Amino acid sequence: MGSLNFDHPPEFFPNESPLDPNEFRRQGHIIVDFIADYYENIEKYPVLSQVEPGYLGKRLPKNAPDYPEPIETILQDVQDHIVPGLTHWQSPNFFAYFPANGSIAGFIGEMLATGFNVVGFNWVASPAASELESIVMDWLGQLLCLPNSFLFSGGGGGVIQGTTCDAILCTLVAARDQMLRRIGRENIGKLVVYCSDQTHSAFQKASQIAGIHPRNFRAIKASISTSFALSPESLRSTICSDLQDGLIPLYLCATVGTTSTAVVDPLEPLCNVTKDYGIWVHIDAAYAGSACICPEFRHFLDGVEGASSFSFNAHKWLFTMLDCCCLWVKDPNALIKSLSTNPEFLRNNATDSKQVVDYKDWQIALSRRFRAMKLWLVLRSYGVEKLRNLLRSHVQMAERFEELLATDKRFEIVVPRIFSLVCFRVSPSAISTELLKHENNINEINKKLLESINASGSMHITHTVVDGMFMLRFAVGATLTEEKHIIMASKVVKEHADAILTF
Amino acid sequence: MGSLNFDHPPEFFPNESPLDPNEFRRQGHIIVDFIADYYENIEKYPVLSQVEPGYLGKRLPKNAPDYPEPIETILQDVQDHIVPGLTHWQSPNFFAYFPANGSIAGFIGEMLATGFNVVGFNWVASPAASELESIVMDWLGQLLCLPNSFLFSGGGGGVIQGTTCDAILCTLVAARDQMLRRIGRENIGKLVVYCSDQTHSAFQKASQIAGIHPRNFRAIKASISTSFALSPESLRSTICSDLQDGLIPLYLCATVGTTSTAVVDPLEPLCNVTKDYGIWVHIDAAYAGSACICPEFRHFLDGVEGASSFSFNAHKWLFTMLDCCCLWVKDPNALIKSLSTNPEFLRNNATDSKQVVDYKDWQIALSRRFRAMKLWLVLRSYGVEKLRNLLRSHVQMAERFEELLATDKRFEIVVPRIFSLVCFRVSPSAISTELLKHENNINEINKKLLESINASGSMHITHTVVDGMFMLRFAVGATLTEEKHIIMASKVVKEHADAILTF
Repeated sequence: MGSLNFDHPPEFFPNESPLDPNEFRRQGHIIVDFIADYYENIEKYPVLSQVEPGYLGKRLPKNAPDYPEPIETILQDVQDHIVPGLTHWQSPNFFAYFPANGSIAGFIGEMLATGFNVVGFNWVASPAASELESIVMDWLGQLLCLPNSFLFSGGGGGVIQGTTCDAILCTLVAARDQMLRRIGRENIGKLVVYCSDQTHSAFQKASQIAGIHPRNFRAIKASISTSFALSPESLRSTICSDLQDGLIPLYLCATVGTTSTAVVDPLEPLCNVTKDYGIWVHIDAAYAGSACICPEFRHFLDGVEGASSFSFNAHKWLFTMLDCCCLWVKDPNALIKSLSTNPEFLRNNATDSKQVVDYKDWQIALSRRFRAMKLWLVLRSYGVEKLRNLLRSHVQMAERFEELLATDKRFEIVVPRIFSLVCFRVSPSAISTELLKHENNINEINKKLLESINASGSMHITHTVVDGMFMLRFAVGATLTEEKHIIMASKVVKEHADAILTF
Repeated sequence: MGSLNFDHPPEFFPNESPLDPNEFRRQGHIIVDFIADYYENIEKYPVLSQVEPGYLGKRLPKNAPDYPEPIETILQDVQDHIVPGLTHWQSPNFFAYFPANGSIAGFIGEMLATGFNVVGFNWVASPAASELESIVMDWLGQLLCLPNSFLFSGGGGGVIQGTTCDAILCTLVAARDQMLRRIGRENIGKLVVYCSDQTHSAFQKASQIAGIHPRNFRAIKASISTSFALSPESLRSTICSDLQDGLIPLYLCATVGTTSTAVVDPLEPLCNVTKDYGIWVHIDAAYAGSACICPEFRHFLDGVEGASSFSFNAHKWLFTMLDCCCLWVKDPNALIKSLSTNPEFLRNNATDSKQVVDYKDWQIALSRRFRAMKLWLVLRSYGVEKLRNLLRSHVQMAERFEELLATDKRFEIVVPRIFSLVCFRVSPSAISTELLKHENNINEINKKLLESINASGSMHITHTVVDGMFMLRFAVGATLTEEKHIIMASKVVKEHADAILTF
């Protein structure tokens, strides 16, 4: 490291090109083994990193080294200093947030994309990158039984974005500009956007970035009476009230599988409301969209035909490494009108011919990675049937966990489980009067349970609060998770509850 | 492929986990060799892909396969169908756009980040990802001799964004909101942003997304009298005129190394103008920023101390695979105020302690890849001195190319070369009267030269038009480029000129 520089004068290091094929081969093989070893040993690490804030600054030098360091030294540092600071998202005992499930095919796809390292801002900059993206997005759209109007074959089209926030921001800006072209730019302050209070915070952020007045951001309260789904009646009355105030309804973000509890908004009734007002509807199926490639889950997308755009994150639950958010729109021109720029240095005959897709005009950034590669690899390496079965196995494991907890009277399943997320808590009825004297309330006890489980390192779960209720979220989907991990997880939860509930 | 599914019934395929370590090892090694072979053979491919629009759709099935396909089959398809559709950015004969130069360290860093596949939205989700990012951004900031006020140690801080457009959008939104908090949201239509007509189109796009009125986007003409740099006098007079019209100056995007011709805007005089009006100055050094780690180029950043934010793309010219845009800001709180969201499901004790950096609040997206890993690997694997020498060698090769062309009277170097970009054209004096009868003008002849060179497949360059003048851009920076490629490139240019200029 830095202090060792004088021990490693430059002449000890080969002067080869930083892309020398032989050295690439040598180091590449070393790293493949390093990562394979990591997966083999992953259960040995505490799932949630146990380091303290600032730990790494104490271990690394204050400056970049002057001279080259061998890969072996660097990898030793990765093992000694980086791995302890990781929260192990690929661990079979990772049940936090939503999964970011990796796969060999996803990894290989990233390697190929990184190895080619093409910058596919427009078609001519690498035709294969653009064309493969259009093809796999049509493949995936078909798997989801999206209406043809979302596919290239039907006049719509799909694009791979980084994240849902990007997807929402791009479609929101398209909707905004479409509206402002009609009513005049000066009316930007009148535009109103809608969602429920269960909608992902990405929507609030996108609205903020797009210049929607914060006063016009409507997070309609979703109550327990609708299982925390957005009520079409509430939406309609909110819209009507805004219209009466002289405001202009613009955009609705509906969710299939909310982040807190994986609830599904009723798409068809919601779209029936919005179509009366010309509102752009985006459907965010970031997590649960993957499950909808299984025929038995597809009905959760019923009503999607009424939306203007739809997105889900293949990097969450479809074995495609971060990042890979799949977005389809019915009207690519709306996106292009807002997001295209045509600097002279990018002009080319293919673009002028209008026969090609230039994805730079479908996204925020100009430069773009060849993300279609990993999606293609995943679809081909596993095939549709195996992907469906893998997703089903995750749902079944979540069901198993739910059963294991439900048979223990101390716990309650707070929200009906649909996909692979179980929301549970220690039930108020399980708390002794004695214990309640020392604990503020049921939420505090559940928070204590959460922290106790995570501090153990044996598994990692996270929490949410809905309608004032603190609950624990158990999300199944890590690729290495097997039934034995689920059984162990239920034991861990119960053991920690034992300790906390016994006074 | 799709049609072969019946020949590959599922029972022929192993039922292992998609992240089985042994299979990971097997496939990982295959791919390392595949990519190493690609680099070894890269000069055999035409640099600019020669495929026709729609080529890939004719070669791939219409649907995703139902059953798994072996990696060997898929790789054969990559070789047969994808590689011909690539424009080979890693080729030593790639001189187009700006480079996206890869390296073994950059690749290895991506592999590690992809293998761990952590989602580092906040500190607790993977402490090492956040902390390493802060550390390497301070390292890099020191290398660039950025004022301490841009570093964490000085109250500022750095963050890795995807691209310059992200960096500009984030800082523009921060500046916008800071101003609107003062003057009221309803005044968004009065905000004015400034740049030159040589500024990258990313700024126009970011302004559009952030809701800046298109009428208030000032692309001040940069003339040949200032070598196409933005004139402080023009900036001041434009600002004064806007103020007289009751508008509110907000943001200036100055450039170190413009995309068309690598011109450097005069930072210090520009900042002297803006400071009188409280304007946020962002410095976009996307390409040329890398060179500024060399002491002899650092003076191009003089004046950066007057700016509010600074960014450059390590994925262009610092051997760090796409994408890796390094952004520093003096006032992280301005970013955080605009971009933070605090959903309950992400609340945690580390965040509450305010001892950690949660990078989700510094960027558009919530989820983020572990990009710091590759930057760290590049800095350590090569060390500062070697990196400087590599950059110098690119500049020297550009100089060599410039000399080789300058000694041929048919060519003229249009803009003084500073970094590794040579802007040249066939000189009007080289055109015979006979030829001019058949060609519209000098620009058409240069366009023909460009197309002829690119169609040959032997090298790839692109063009720009500045002040009505069509010129060819020759950007050196691909990692595998050696002097012999430069000499060959100059020969190719001359040979194609021979053919075009001979009538």
